[in-house]
Amino acid sequence: MSTPPSPVAACTAGTSPRRPPHDALRGDAQAWFESLRDRICGAFEAVEDADSGSDQPAGRFARTAWTRPEDGSLEGGGPLEGGGGVISLMRGRVFEKVGVNVSTVQGEFSPEFRASIPGAAEDPRFWASGISLVAHPRSPLVPAAHFNTRMLVTTRGWFGGGGDITPMFPHSVAAQADAQRFHAALRAACDAHDPAYYPRFKEWCDRYFFLPHRNEPRGLGGIFFDHHATADAAADFAFTRDVGEAFLSVYPRIVADRMHQPWTAADREQQLVRRGRYVEFNLIHDRGTLFGLKTGGNVDAILMSLPPEVRWP
Amino acid sequence: MSTPPSPVAACTAGTSPRRPPHDALRGDAQAWFESLRDRICGAFEAVEDADSGSDQPAGRFARTAWTRPEDGSLEGGGPLEGGGGVISLMRGRVFEKVGVNVSTVQGEFSPEFRASIPGAAEDPRFWASGISLVAHPRSPLVPAAHFNTRMLVTTRGWFGGGGDITPMFPHSVAAQADAQRFHAALRAACDAHDPAYYPRFKEWCDRYFFLPHRNEPRGLGGIFFDHHATADAAADFAFTRDVGEAFLSVYPRIVADRMHQPWTAADREQQLVRRGRYVEFNLIHDRGTLFGLKTGGNVDAILMSLPPEVRWP
Repeated sequence: MSTPPSPVAACTAGTSPRRPPHDALRGDAQAWFESLRDRICGAFEAVEDADSGSDQPAGRFARTAWTRPEDGSLEGGGPLEGGGGVISLMRGRVFEKVGVNVSTVQGEFSPEFRASIPGAAEDPRFWASGISLVAHPRSPLVPAAHFNTRMLVTTRGWFGGGGDITPMFPHSVAAQADAQRFHAALRAACDAHDPAYYPRFKEWCDRYFFLPHRNEPRGLGGIFFDHHATADAAADFAFTRDVGEAFLSVYPRIVADRMHQPWTAADREQQLVRRGRYVEFNLIHDRGTLFGLKTGGNVDAILMSLPPEVRWP
Repeated sequence: MSTPPSPVAACTAGTSPRRPPHDALRGDAQAWFESLRDRICGAFEAVEDADSGSDQPAGRFARTAWTRPEDGSLEGGGPLEGGGGVISLMRGRVFEKVGVNVSTVQGEFSPEFRASIPGAAEDPRFWASGISLVAHPRSPLVPAAHFNTRMLVTTRGWFGGGGDITPMFPHSVAAQADAQRFHAALRAACDAHDPAYYPRFKEWCDRYFFLPHRNEPRGLGGIFFDHHATADAAADFAFTRDVGEAFLSVYPRIVADRMHQPWTAADREQQLVRRGRYVEFNLIHDRGTLFGLKTGGNVDAILMSLPPEVRWP
């Protein structure tokens, strides 16, 4: 496999910085995020169809396209605008609420953000594409899950993403088994590329999805990675794809294997309270959520992650 | 009325700064916050009793005392610890959830906070006492409300607080009438002290209780003031008391006058969605909430404000 010049070397080479190798992957990355979205939505709809015991109709995704406003003068000094995305939202009988957002945006980072974004100090232009998903099943015995992958391009380029699982009874034998299955799939995707990835990205996930104000983890973890750029951008893209394929292969099966188990009103109450913790994490701590909201991102797409029904009793 | 030396003058007078006049008010302030709590809880319980049409029992407040941990080594560089508070929580038939917290704490601000707290750069020790209240009525036709007042003492001293009303149908004639009544009571309390207070503190409230990510106000406002320290601390305390008395005089009556109106399942759905905005404000924007959570404050007391049931459909 050929090794393209390092983006770092490229952008220190002259006043008109060369573009990172990720530039050439933009079309493929966007197409893959959208294809993964289609396949995940298909798999979730198949799970809805398989829940034949319900008297509710099987859910179907509805899509809503959005575009970023042309006006770049946003409060908080957000990036200049361009592009948009599509929210796919399903309110079903197995999935009480599941949203999958794909977006592809480009523009310029405002001066306030340039120092903190790799490669943006040299040239504020950026391109970003990704997929983001949060699933809130109706049954308290089916774990919630989050998954996302993205590619960012400034004068540098990198991949980021991950997935994590949030059972409502995290100490139960069933939840531990589901988490083990979820982790095993992600570990296999990681190990196929570098045996150092899984331990590093699992630990990153544990650190990230943690509620310091309650001193408790959000769920049972998974993997998280960001600013991922080895010398081989094509290999990084392949790794990112494998993470997505792993999520697709494992999570719908966990849901399908748990969805028929009977649950009680007390289980539901526990679920609604645990969902409150999910809201607390997303609104207080999640950097992606806060960055999006403070830079004038699409509110519906960003807050798509919030659970349909929640209690703080 | 005697005019004590200005706290600012006092603390620039020498290396061992004199204390502000608020020091002498500490006992009276704490006693008043606790007395107001008792009277507000009594008024809310009387409203519960008056809802005779319900087949649920009338609610009663339950009190839980908490103390700050002795260990000052908190993540985020919180203040050194001391003191505590009491949460009064009622889950009733009129008030689905209402919490009233009084707390009196003292300690030292850690170096990170000293620059941003008036008077703490000269001497990091502080004392703070206050009352904080959030009411979430069961009926979607009864407005939610928030109220708090507090006194802070460093080498300076000041009062802060306010109250605001959040109807679930803010554009309705009824909500507008309730808001007018609420504002009139607060305005009368302000006008008795300084005709400039109400316009200034109303505007401050409108600015503060605003969700920029949705470009919408949290509710129909009220008043908000902070770092309030004229040359007469006793007068400032009297003003603060009058704000509390105004809230006590008006909000329970608004609740009692609306609680018998019939409402529909669609009204309830709207209420649960509006409550989601309340959560978004408190967890994303509210400085008091975020400061408390990041400095190791009592989580139950801080998040007591969150509504009992919420939807993000």
